[in-house]
Formats: sequence, structure tokens, C-alpha cells
Amino acid sequence: MATVTGGKLVYRLAEGSAAMAHLLGSKGAHASEMARIGVPVPDGFVITTTACREYLRLHRLPDGLWEAIVENVHALERGAKRGFGDPNEPLVVSVRSGAAVSMPGMMDTILDMGVTDDTWRGLAAMMGDERPALDAYRRFIQGFGGVVLGIDRARFEERLEAAKAERGLTFDYELPPDALHALIANFKQVIVDATGAPLSGDPWTLLRQAVEAVFASWNNPRAITYRDFHGISHDLGTGCVIMAMVFGNLGLDSGTGVLFTRSPATGERTLYGEFLTNAQGEDVVAGVRTPARIAQLRDDMPDVYAQVEETARKLEGHYRDVQDIEFTVERGKLYILQTRGAKRTAHAAVKIAVDLEAEGVLSRSEAVGRIDAEEVTQVLMPRFDSAAKAEAVAAGRLFAEGVAGSPGAASGAAVFDPDRAVELAGQGFKVILVRHETSPDDVHGIIRAEGVLTAKGGMTSHAAVVTRGLGKPAVVGCEELGFENGSVFARGHVLTEGDMMSIDGATGEVLVGEVSARAPEPDELGDLNTLLAWADDLRRLRVWANADAPDDARRARANGAQGIGLCRTEHMFFDPERLPHVQRMLSVGPQASRLEREAAALREQLVQAPASGRAALAERLAAAEEQVRGAESVRQFHAELAKLEEYQRDDFYGILKAMAGLPVVIRLLDAPLHEFLPHYDELVAETAALAHGGADPDALADKRRTLELVEALRESNPMLGHRGVRVGITMPEVYDMQVRAIFGAAARLAQEGVAALPEVMIPIVSHVNELRRLKPRLAEVARATLEEAGASLEFRFGTMIEVPRAALTAGEIAKDAAFFSFGSNDLTQMTFAYSRDDAEAKFLRHYTETEVLPWNPFESLDTNGVGRLMRLAADEGRAENAALMVGICGEHGGDPRSVAFCHELGLDYVSCSPFRVPVARLAAAQSALGQLVPRTG
Amino acid sequence: MATVTGGKLVYRLAEGSAAMAHLLGSKGAHASEMARIGVPVPDGFVITTTACREYLRLHRLPDGLWEAIVENVHALERGAKRGFGDPNEPLVVSVRSGAAVSMPGMMDTILDMGVTDDTWRGLAAMMGDERPALDAYRRFIQGFGGVVLGIDRARFEERLEAAKAERGLTFDYELPPDALHALIANFKQVIVDATGAPLSGDPWTLLRQAVEAVFASWNNPRAITYRDFHGISHDLGTGCVIMAMVFGNLGLDSGTGVLFTRSPATGERTLYGEFLTNAQGEDVVAGVRTPARIAQLRDDMPDVYAQVEETARKLEGHYRDVQDIEFTVERGKLYILQTRGAKRTAHAAVKIAVDLEAEGVLSRSEAVGRIDAEEVTQVLMPRFDSAAKAEAVAAGRLFAEGVAGSPGAASGAAVFDPDRAVELAGQGFKVILVRHETSPDDVHGIIRAEGVLTAKGGMTSHAAVVTRGLGKPAVVGCEELGFENGSVFARGHVLTEGDMMSIDGATGEVLVGEVSARAPEPDELGDLNTLLAWADDLRRLRVWANADAPDDARRARANGAQGIGLCRTEHMFFDPERLPHVQRMLSVGPQASRLEREAAALREQLVQAPASGRAALAERLAAAEEQVRGAESVRQFHAELAKLEEYQRDDFYGILKAMAGLPVVIRLLDAPLHEFLPHYDELVAETAALAHGGADPDALADKRRTLELVEALRESNPMLGHRGVRVGITMPEVYDMQVRAIFGAAARLAQEGVAALPEVMIPIVSHVNELRRLKPRLAEVARATLEEAGASLEFRFGTMIEVPRAALTAGEIAKDAAFFSFGSNDLTQMTFAYSRDDAEAKFLRHYTETEVLPWNPFESLDTNGVGRLMRLAADEGRAENAALMVGICGEHGGDPRSVAFCHELGLDYVSCSPFRVPVARLAAAQSALGQLVPRTG
Repeated sequence: MATVTGGKLVYRLAEGSAAMAHLLGSKGAHASEMARIGVPVPDGFVITTTACREYLRLHRLPDGLWEAIVENVHALERGAKRGFGDPNEPLVVSVRSGAAVSMPGMMDTILDMGVTDDTWRGLAAMMGDERPALDAYRRFIQGFGGVVLGIDRARFEERLEAAKAERGLTFDYELPPDALHALIANFKQVIVDATGAPLSGDPWTLLRQAVEAVFASWNNPRAITYRDFHGISHDLGTGCVIMAMVFGNLGLDSGTGVLFTRSPATGERTLYGEFLTNAQGEDVVAGVRTPARIAQLRDDMPDVYAQVEETARKLEGHYRDVQDIEFTVERGKLYILQTRGAKRTAHAAVKIAVDLEAEGVLSRSEAVGRIDAEEVTQVLMPRFDSAAKAEAVAAGRLFAEGVAGSPGAASGAAVFDPDRAVELAGQGFKVILVRHETSPDDVHGIIRAEGVLTAKGGMTSHAAVVTRGLGKPAVVGCEELGFENGSVFARGHVLTEGDMMSIDGATGEVLVGEVSARAPEPDELGDLNTLLAWADDLRRLRVWANADAPDDARRARANGAQGIGLCRTEHMFFDPERLPHVQRMLSVGPQASRLEREAAALREQLVQAPASGRAALAERLAAAEEQVRGAESVRQFHAELAKLEEYQRDDFYGILKAMAGLPVVIRLLDAPLHEFLPHYDELVAETAALAHGGADPDALADKRRTLELVEALRESNPMLGHRGVRVGITMPEVYDMQVRAIFGAAARLAQEGVAALPEVMIPIVSHVNELRRLKPRLAEVARATLEEAGASLEFRFGTMIEVPRAALTAGEIAKDAAFFSFGSNDLTQMTFAYSRDDAEAKFLRHYTETEVLPWNPFESLDTNGVGRLMRLAADEGRAENAALMVGICGEHGGDPRSVAFCHELGLDYVSCSPFRVPVARLAAAQSALGQLVPRTG
Repeated sequence: MATVTGGKLVYRLAEGSAAMAHLLGSKGAHASEMARIGVPVPDGFVITTTACREYLRLHRLPDGLWEAIVENVHALERGAKRGFGDPNEPLVVSVRSGAAVSMPGMMDTILDMGVTDDTWRGLAAMMGDERPALDAYRRFIQGFGGVVLGIDRARFEERLEAAKAERGLTFDYELPPDALHALIANFKQVIVDATGAPLSGDPWTLLRQAVEAVFASWNNPRAITYRDFHGISHDLGTGCVIMAMVFGNLGLDSGTGVLFTRSPATGERTLYGEFLTNAQGEDVVAGVRTPARIAQLRDDMPDVYAQVEETARKLEGHYRDVQDIEFTVERGKLYILQTRGAKRTAHAAVKIAVDLEAEGVLSRSEAVGRIDAEEVTQVLMPRFDSAAKAEAVAAGRLFAEGVAGSPGAASGAAVFDPDRAVELAGQGFKVILVRHETSPDDVHGIIRAEGVLTAKGGMTSHAAVVTRGLGKPAVVGCEELGFENGSVFARGHVLTEGDMMSIDGATGEVLVGEVSARAPEPDELGDLNTLLAWADDLRRLRVWANADAPDDARRARANGAQGIGLCRTEHMFFDPERLPHVQRMLSVGPQASRLEREAAALREQLVQAPASGRAALAERLAAAEEQVRGAESVRQFHAELAKLEEYQRDDFYGILKAMAGLPVVIRLLDAPLHEFLPHYDELVAETAALAHGGADPDALADKRRTLELVEALRESNPMLGHRGVRVGITMPEVYDMQVRAIFGAAARLAQEGVAALPEVMIPIVSHVNELRRLKPRLAEVARATLEEAGASLEFRFGTMIEVPRAALTAGEIAKDAAFFSFGSNDLTQMTFAYSRDDAEAKFLRHYTETEVLPWNPFESLDTNGVGRLMRLAADEGRAENAALMVGICGEHGGDPRSVAFCHELGLDYVSCSPFRVPVARLAAAQSALGQLVPRTG
């Protein structure tokens, strides 16, 4: 804990500066800074955070503090030529809390301190009106009673409402002096009732209580919750700013306003804000009168406007950023109450950064550093027209609200089945796929849908992850949805197939009917493109994209991707046209592959065998080869493989062509095999229904055969199952086929004069022997395929590092791999033992909400655990193989803080969704600038 | 590859020694050793493995080799006073392969080399009989044709059989000279037919061919397969031993025999073997006459017996181990053909080691080092009476053969359902549980069964692992079993419920009916106990046991366990009496726990809140507490918890009492929750059947409710799911209950004056915060429970390290844990991304068979990957917490090579199945002696 170090506990504004936020709190430091640079702020002083910490430790004001406060109030009196508690010319002050870090609305403020029974008349005289003085008194009692004395605010509000109702009034300011007198008396009684004692009439006593209340407010539940949520230390304490009150309600030459120095919506360089003549700040917030646009001030009070404009530009120039300013005009004189960096939309942020660079305020690297990398996706996404959406909501068309799963906005016809989605999309309809939840075999439907709505799952659910990857909007975890008879219902609306609906993936809103939306055109991204080009000059990490189809690849390239880091081949298998081939391949493959393997083993033995054993071996081999030739399973297997090879060659042709001249890393089949088959549960239910329903025996037998196949491929933990390289080894013909397709496509492109640069990636490797076993075989297939086509091409084989053991033995593996690509999704699953499909709903949300985990490791890399494995693998891999390329292709490749970690590890590239390429480009630059650092925890 | 270094390529026997096995091969080196120490071996010489390697490199005999061979044959001729190819007194030799490592039966031998058309008459004269000389010639041609010329052996056998059939003869030796003449001519024609050339008549030419064939046999398929399987280098090459043939078939003063210097079955110190008068070695193997017991020789040939006995004791003394000896007596003179360490049963091995120590031959540590730690389990297991089993097999009662899953033997009534197993066992029947495969909810049945038989799965299947843990026999993966209508059939037998059957878990045999079996009594283990006591003096690692029940704990203690390293609490939940309570707890728990959590959070906020916020918080808290009080779910939840707490307290009481004075580590609930509920698949099918079968609507509704609960708890990858500490955090009342039960039991024992030493272990930790969150809460529960009972007890909380992230962040975790226990089963699953339930059948068997993996990492620790995590965790944990206890409680704790790794890591203890405690005690001692080393690969 902090202790008093003998330092000053109170600073006059002119003694402080912006650099002293830790001591003075942010509000106090910025008020000091403004005073220091000659911006007109009301006179005042700041009690330090040290004093607050001492108070919290001692449960009383530290020695000497009260004397220092009194001395500083006297200094204020001298400057203002008013007296604190003076009945004729009373000094009135505000007492505000303000910590070093922003905690908006979380702590307490007392205004109008100094208005008492003795002084209100003097204030009224100064104001030239009784009403505002009495109203100030009324407000003071109300604020003091709530904040300092802890009395339920409702008890004051009730009486205020009753007073207005009694007179048929609507607004507080309409209460006449006699009503205010009665209300003040009433409020005083509330205090007596609640505390057993009357409100002190001594302003000094009240001030002392207020300062203690501000300090104590550091530990109110809202503040604690806020700090917990935002990871702010509970040990900082708050500063306390005491300033002379200025009054904007002293006539038509007074007023109050808020402004942004540029438009927070568009970034346009024009003062943007509102002003209310003859009013206090609270009146703006209360919305009792409609404020005027700030431009109006130019006509109404040209002198004041000139002061405002000059001061605004001065502050913007001083802080080198757009400011959000609160000000009051008291009888023609401007006072700035507060200034801070303005919150802005992603669009505005981009324009402002580029403009400030053009104006010479920021360097290019500073401009790049000003943008939240995560936010730039918003610039690229289609959005609903905000007026149209507001209108729809107003018309009662808000259907439901869920989790904002993937940004963007879309309208389309509701469809409840992926096959129907494909069918209707094929007929030219725009569709929204609505599912309880999605799984990998919904992907063909997701691909053809405009967006996805699910009832289950969170930010990391299948639907959210896939749609973010595809750059489509999704609203997920929309638990209020009910499903019945092929329709979905919520809030009294029912949607059946074909009914139009709209989803806003940025807010989680779901609407009935269509809402107009559009995405920005490339030429509308001028400023973003400028900024990204600057980022490209600054970054060291290359940015690649994950793309499974030519369209994705083209989009990735348009967004600046320098290669494809992950081309998944399983999505290609889910196409309804192809799936039957895949299923037949899986039903005969294991048997066929075993026969071929046995023959191959004999063939190899024969080569090595000495004369004495040849004859017997040759006989066995002949028999085995005869069996292979005669087997129906082998014939079917190769027929299906040939068909799939054709499809895959076309897939790869398109992607390699779209990425001509840039590397394309193609991952061989990775998915658990059962994903290509019907759902086991459904099959069981269907079979049972057929069996008990007296169905056609053939249909039942058919269903039973399918069920047997699914049973044979079923696994209790598919994530840890027979997938990736394990299939490549037990059924190598599948990988052979894929490699033939890849190099067949590359050869065709070579003949067309297009530079195809495929690289082959083997997934789920956990032991170097897997790579050693497969690589020579596949390299031979590649070589033979190229030779057959008369093409010549360099090619490389690499591996995913996604199984902990691969990372732990990376040194060994690097000897047989040209590149590593971290599959950080799976690596996170295995390292934590979290099943991504289940964890969120079952316990992970609870973990992040209650801070058992500092963040969701599927959203941002767990640097301590998963990251440690990555560091170890990258370092040890490179130690064994200096030419090793190392990248990442999990979802984390598009997460800014994870990109910063990859930069720190010295990776060669990050690969992410095409839509997140701009995010990664910015994040990589910010990491290189040291402005973005990895998370730890 | 090796190259000739100018060294000798041929050694006379007297020039070599046992230490030269690498150069001479094992057979050659031991023949040399015998010659060196004066044991009578036939004269001879050895061609080195270097010569072989050169031959394989050059594809011809290396320079100078043939000349050296010829010179050495001449030396033999001089010693024997016979001539190679001499028509009157021919020298006859054997040519044998022999590598540095034993490869029994894998390579080739040619006998009777030197018998030709020119010499057979001279040999006949020396033998005093034509028939054996002609038979030797016939055998030579047959062996040479097969081994050297690579002719299918069947072509000779066919003709031999025809010759016997023609004369109505049964045995080869009955063939008269004329028949042998005809057969020899016939065999010669086979060679002409197969090779296009006649057999050479020149013994030198034949010898050269034979040497080349021996060299080439190094690479015959059998040899390659054998070396692949046993991990022997393919680069060693074989030696070639050429010795003068001695003949045991020269009359009644000749003969041949084999002997063990002690009984290989019991270890008794008496010559044990067989002798056949007037016979060659092949005759013993051929089984044409019944050989006499070796003791018979004492009466028949007292001089020879004296020679045999003296030589046997000399060899045993020289090699300091029991020898397996082959010998021939030629006209009263003894020749030792071969000696080697004798294979022996585990019983014999133990007795022999203890006896050799008593005889002063071995030190105690040498005696401990002589036992294969893995084998000692055999000494402890019940076994079938071997005669009874042989009789049953002979009677056609062999039902099927599967994989030997867990050693031991048992008979019982076949039962196909675990509930029926419990029921029938309760009625006093011994039962064998027969299942397609088993899962965790069969455990109550397995516990009550004598043994288990499954159709699926291998050595690491659920059934095998659980039964090995329980010390019950199991035969698994018995794929020939067919199931139909509540019965199992194979090989023409059908067994229905109640039919007696027997399983031999050491051999994989399944028999119809009962076979008598028994386990050794403790006083029969005298020698083993002696040896284990020596081992205990030598080892550093402590040996604990995994035990879930008092009986297990007692058995563990009787077997020498020094503590319980893993007491699993989930098995206790599967008891049919308890399961309904568990299920009801799970159905109301999540809701109840959430309500209680919300109230607790408010309570905590209220403690921290300053005056101003108290009132509102207090109101919210009152409402939340009211809700908790009123909720039926909360009432039911606590009722079920109370019931389960009673059960658990009794469980823990029994175990802690059985282990009085020794530590007992109790793991809190770890299993995925769905394991306590009915199978989803079955429920789906049953619900569908009910729905379509026009069933009682109430029954259907009931089934649907169960289905909903199962659906809510279901996970796509339960191994990576909501289990262990994750349940402890989301539903902490369950862990509270278990901790109350543990310390309630401990307190009761304390009052009875019994020293209970419970330690609490939290499973599936992946982040230190999980421990930080739970430990204070549970420690408070423990403290309060003890206080309430007026007991006082030290207690400790520790954690499993079974998730890779826990190992990677062990330094952090060690700050909050008193001990680490490696859960190496799960750690292996996560590190490899292998689901243990599926991997074996899907790809792991293929991986180990084809050497993609050097061994099954579930059977023996993967030191490079999983072991690296363990080393890192142990080192970094201890660096942060010097008092940290570190142990292992996975199955690997009972695997000798894994124990060696744990010793190397410096762990404090290994914990294994009670039945494997003796294995671990021995392995720990052998590790400390440096005789057992960890695997690498």
C-alpha cells in the first residue's frame, strides 16, 4: 500500500500537468494541463490520489490534508473575489472524483457546494433571479443526500415528482420559488428521517463530508465491478477535483455545450456539437429543451463562437487528437470544463488519422498507431441504413436479440435447412440460414446464405467462427428463439421458410422483413487504403489469408494478402454433388486400402529378399495382387478417388490462379471422417422409426447399412480421433489423390504461363515418423504428376503444429518440414483440454465472466500456455532448420493482440480470414512500432 | 556401412571369447568362451560379422576370406584326423548362422556338410552302419536344397512322405538303405529340375555356397520382420560358425540331449532335461522316440552323467546364471553344442535369483536385477491348473481366442449385462461379464465379475485397463465372438446366460465350462517377498497404489504400497443404489447452484460496499436469498448431496482406516457428467420406439425428460469437456460435499485413535486460477468440518497435472499446490491428441505395428513428448515450491520402463494398481541400480 511520502497532497490547477494523471487523476491532470497552456478553465485545485489511498487506509483524512484544502479554498475565494459561505457573494464549488484511468459514470460528483440557507439569497442576487439559486440549493441537497449520506435517491425523486404533479408541471425548471422553498424543506426532512440529524448549515463541514464521500466512492460496488471487468487495479485510488462553479444559466449571454473538434461519425473537420442558451450542464443531459447545433452559436454569440473555435483548435493541436469538450459560457465568458480524446466510429478514426497526418500533426507511424486494428473490419462490412433500421424497430419489427457473432448486416428469406439454403440460393433467392446450432456439415448451406442465425453458442461457436471466416454476418446464441413445425418464433412474431428477415451481426439484432444495407465500395476505402499502405511499410510480419475457394482467394488478395496460409480441403468435400462420392469412398476405402497395403508390403519385401526367399514371396505377392485386381472395393475406391480428384483439381486450379505468383499452402484432408456422413443420432432415430413403423424392408435395410458405416467411423472424442495425417497413413490413397489434384492443377497453370506456387501441408502431426513415412510417398506422387504433365515446379512439404507433442518435438519435426504453421485453434483445444464446440456454453463463459480465465483463449492467444509451446516450437524448429518458415493459420492470426505475440516470436507470417487481412496488416505494423503488445496472464 | 579394417575375418574357437559377440555373433562367441574355459565343444571356427557385412556390401566374399576358411578347415582336419571330402575318413561339419543378438529360428543352418557320393561309404564305415550315413546324406541334400538353393522345402518333403507311404512306414529313420538310395537320387533330380544343374559333388564348392547362403540369410524376410519387430539394427550382420559334426547315433554309448541346470518351471536346483540314446539332435525335436529324463543317464551312463553334471555346474558358475544346454555324446565322449541363459517362468526366476544369492553367486542387487519386473505379476495371479486346461482343450472345449488383456484366470457363469452381473453376483454366483466392449458405466458389473470377455478393443481398451487395475483377468478383442439373442457363439459352441465358462487372461484363451484355478497364498511368495525386501532397500522412489475401495487399499498395503496416490471418487457414484441420487443431483444442480452463486456474489459485494451502496445491495441480497430458500431445485440438490455425502463418508472411512498412518490422496470428482446418465444413443432409439409404437404417453414423456437432461449434459468431445475442476467451479457444492465427506471420515477415525492422512487432489486443472478460486473455499469447508467434529488434522491440497497447460504453467500452479500428481493417461491423450477409447482400433494398432510409433504411449510413457512436459513441470514446480511432492498416478506408474523415467525425473513416488505394486517396487530398485533405463524415441 502507498504511504504518505511527505509530498504535497493538494495541487492548484496551475501547478499540475497532463503528465501527472497518476497523482492527480485524469480529470485533475487535464484540467491542470488546460490551465497550464492558457485554456480558460474555472479556477480550482486537486486533492491527490495519494491522499485518497491514505484515507482508505486510515479511514480518516490524513494529517494536514484538511488544512491544505481550506488554504486552497481561500485561494479560490481570493481569485473569485467571493467568499465560501459568504451570504452576499458566495463562492460555489463542484467536488468531483477522477481516477488515473477513465471509469465513466462509475464514481460520484457533488455540484453546487456552498449554497446554504445563509448564502442562497446572495447567489440569487448574483444571478439576478431567485429561481435558479433555489434550484441550485435543491439540487445540492439532493446530490449531497444521495452521494454523501447514502440515502436512496428515490426518496428525493418521489418528492420532486409529487411537487411537480401537485402543480401540473412537467419539467423541474418550471417549479416556482415557493414550490422550491417547500421542496427544500421537504428534502431537509428526508435527511433528518434517514440520518436522525439535520443537514449541516456550515459549508466547510459539508465540504469535508463531500471529500470523504468522493474518496469512499472508489470502493462502491459499481466501481469495483467496473474495475474487475476492465482489469484495473483496485489500488490506484481517485483524485478529487474542486473547482469554482460557473453558471450557464445567468441569462441569454450564458449557456452550456458539448462539442467534438471533428465529426465523430465521419471524421469531417468541423466543430460538431450542441449548445443550450441560459442553461446548466445537467439541463443538456436532461433533454428538457432541444439544444442548438454548435454552428448556431456563430450567429447568436459570434464572440463566444470565436473563443470556442480557437480553444477547440488549440486543444486539438495540443493533444494531437480530436477532442470531446464540455464547456460553459457565463455572461459571455467561456470556461472549458473538460476535454478528452473523442470516441469515434471506425470510419471517422481512419479519416481523422489520415487527415492529421496530412495536416502535419501526426507522423505516418503515429497515424497507424491511432487506429484500433480490431475496428477496421467495421469499415469493410455492409451495414444497415441506420434510419431504416430505427424505423423498423419503431414499427415493432425487432424479432429477437442474440450475441453479435460476426459483423455485417444482411436480409434474406428464412431457411431452416442447409440443403434448402443451397437450393433456394441456386434459384436466386437471398437466404438467411436459421439453425438451432450449426456443425461442419451445414457449411455448404452457410456458404450460400447471406447470414446465419442460431439459437445456441457464443462468439466462438461453429456458426460464429465460420461466418467470421467467410465475412458473413451472424447472430448466434439467440436463446429466445423457439422452433416449431418448420418455423421460428419470438416476441409474438412467427417466421416460416421464405419469410424475409434481417440480421445485424454488429449488434445482435434480428428484425422481421428487409432492411436496406450496403457495403462500402473499394474506392470508398481511400483513407483506409492509405493507412494500410503506411502500415505495410512499417510491419515485418507478412500477412496471408485462409481461403478455401477462388472467390475467397481473390478477396484476400484484394484486401492485401501476400499468400494463402491455409487452404482447407474438407470444405470442398461437403458440396452436395460431391458428398455421395466421399461417402462411397469412405465405405469401401478401408478395405481397399488394406488390400493394397498388404500387396505393397510384399512388393517391398521382395525387393530386399535374398534368392532363397524370393520364390515363396513372389507367390504370395502374386496372390495378393490378384486379390487387389479382383476386389470390387478396390475398383470402387479408385473410381471415387478419380472423381474427387477431378473436382479437387478444379478447386485448386481456381485458387492457384487467383493467387498467381504468391504462395498457396494447401492442407491435406484434416476433418474427422464421420463429419462426411449423416448424423448418427438422426440415423438411430430414423432407423428405430422405420423398424417400429412397419416400413419397407428395403428402406430399413438401407438405413441399417448406412448406420453400420456411421457406427464404424464414429468416435467418442472425434477431436482426438482418426483424422488428418492419421487417415493419410492408414488410407494413403486419399492423400495421394489430393497431391495429384494439386500438382495436376499447378501443371495446367504452368502450361498456361501462370506461376502457381502450391505448398503441401500435413495436419495433426504428433510424431516426426508420420511425416517421415508420408513425405517421400507424396513427394513421389507430386514428382510423377508433374513429370506426366511435362511441367517442372519447386514444391515444399510442411506441417501444422497443432498437437502439443508436435510443438514439444519440433526440433525433430523441423528436420523433415520446410515450414511450420501453427494451428492455434486445435493447439488451444489440446493444450487446455477444452473442446471448442462445448466449452463456451458449458463452462468457458462462466470462466471468463468470473475471471477464472483472464480472457477467452479461442479469441486471443493464451500466451503463457499455448504461446509457450509456440515459442518453443519456433525456436527449436529454427535451431534445427535455419530455412524453416514459421507462420500461424488459426483464427488467432486475425486477432490484434495475438498478432503482436506472433511478431514477438519472430514468425514469418500470420494467416487469417480474408476479411481480417486489413486488421492483421494494421496490427502487424502496430506490433512493429511497439504500440501493440501481447497479452499475458 | 562397415568396411574391412584389415582385421582377421576368421577366428578359431580357442581365439575367441564371450566378450566378442559383436564380432563373432553370440553363438560363435559362446562356443569360443566354452572352448576357452575348457568345456568340451566340437572343434571349429567362426567367420566374423564383419565378413558378412562385407559380403552384403560387395555381393561376393571379401578378398582373402575363402583362403582363411580353407586354412581353418585344414586345421580341423588335422585335429580330427579326418579329411574334408576324404572317402575313407571324411570330416563332416555344420555351418550355422549366429548374430550378436538372439534371433531364434530366424536364420539358416546346414548340417552334415561333407557327406557326398564319394564320402558316404567312409562315413558309414566310421558309424558301423549304412543307414545313418545315407540318412545324413539325404538330410544334407534336403537342407542344402532348401537353404542354399532356395528350393521350396515342400518339394523334398513330398517325396520323403511318398517314399514312406510306399513302404507303409511312419518314421524317417525306418527307411531302409535301398529306399534312401532311391530318395537321394530323387532329391538330386529335384535340384536339377529347380536349378537346371546337378548338385556339385565337391564338398569345397558346397561349403562356399553354404557360407554365402548363411550370410544372405541375414536379409531373408523372416529375419527382417523379426528385427523390425524387435527393434534390432539391420546393419549388424551375422557370424557363421563352422564346427566338426559329432554324432550321437553311433551306438548305445552315444546320444543327444538338452538340459536346464535348474528347473525352468520351479527353479529347483536339479538338472532338468531329456536324453535320447543313439540319436542325433534332430531326432529329439522330431519326437520319434520318447526321450528319457536326464536322471536316467545316471543309471545308463554314469561316466557320461558325471561329465554332464560337472560341465553343467561349471557353465552355470561361469555364466552366473541358469543355463540351457544342448549336448551330444559320441561314443562315450561329451560335447557341448550350445549354452545360453535359460528361459524360465516368473516363479522359477524369483527362486533362482534368491537361491543364487544364497549360494554366493549373486549379490542382492544383482539378484534384484535378474528379474523382469513386468513378469512378477504372474507370480501373484491365479492360474489354471495346466493339466486341467490341457484336458479341456483336448476335449474340444476351447471356445475362442482373443487378446490377453489382463493376467489371471477365472471361471464363472456367462452374463451379458452389468446389472445382471451385479444381481447374480449378489446371489452368490461367480460370473464372467461378456460384452461387445465395455464403458465406464459397466464398471459396477466389472467390479462384481470374476473376469471380463470383450469382442472389441486391445491391450489398452477400457475393459483391459479397468481389469488390470482391479487385478481381474480379461480377454479382450476376441473378434470371433458372435452375439445373438442374448447369447454368444464361436467355433460351434453357444453360451447363454448362466452357462459356465473360463477365461485365461495370460494367454487369451476362452473355454467352455469350468477349469480349476488358484492364486498363490502369501506364504507361498516367500522368495518373492525376500526379493522385494531387497528391492525396497535399493530403491529411492516410493511406491503408492491407486485404490478406490477399502479392499483395494488393503490389498495394496499387503503388496507393499506406502500410500494411496489416487483414490477415484467417481467409481463410487456408479453403484446402482447411488446412481439415482447422482442423476437427480445432476438434474437440479446447475439451476440450484446458479441461484446460490448469485446470492453469494451479492453477499460478497455487500461486505466490500461503502455505506452509500449498502441499502440497495441488501435489498437485492434479501430477494436472492428468498429465492434460494424457496427454490425446489435447491432443496432437492442439497437433499441429494446430503445422501451422497453419507455414502462417500463411509467410503472414505474404510479406505483411510485401511491405510492408517499412510497418506491417501483423494481425487475429487473428475468424470464427465454424462457418464452418470443413460446412453444417449439408447435413449434416442428407445424414445423413437416409444413414439412410434403407440406407447403409454406418460412413459414417453418420462423418457423424453431423461433425454432432455442427457442432451443438456452431452458433449461432442467429453474428454475435453465439462469435468473435474470445471464442475468444481461451476457447481462447487459437489466438491464441498466431497470435502465434507473426506474430513468427516477423517474426524471419525481421529476420534477412534486411527491416524487418517487424507490429501485432496483437484483434477483437470489447466490454469492456476482454478486452484486459487477453489482451494480457499474447500480448505474452509475442511476446517469447518473438522472443527464441528472437534478434530484437528493437518491437510493438504494438490493438483493433477494431466492437461498440457498445467505442465506448461507448473511454476505458477506450484505456488498454490502442495503436490503434483501426473495423470499420465490424460496427459498422453492431450499431448498426442489421441482419444484412448478410439485410437487403438482406429489407427494406433496400425501405428505400432508399422512402427510409425516405436511403442504404444498408453502402455509406456512417451518420454520425448509427454515426458518432456513432465520434466518441465517437475523442475519448474519445484523451483517455485521446494516442498512440492511430485508423483505419478496414471497407468504408467506400474510400467517398468516408465518407472525408470520417473526415477530419472526424481519424482517422489509412483502410484499404480495394487496388483502392480510389486512390479513397481522391483522396477524402482532396478532403476536406482541403473539396470532399467527409460525408453527414448
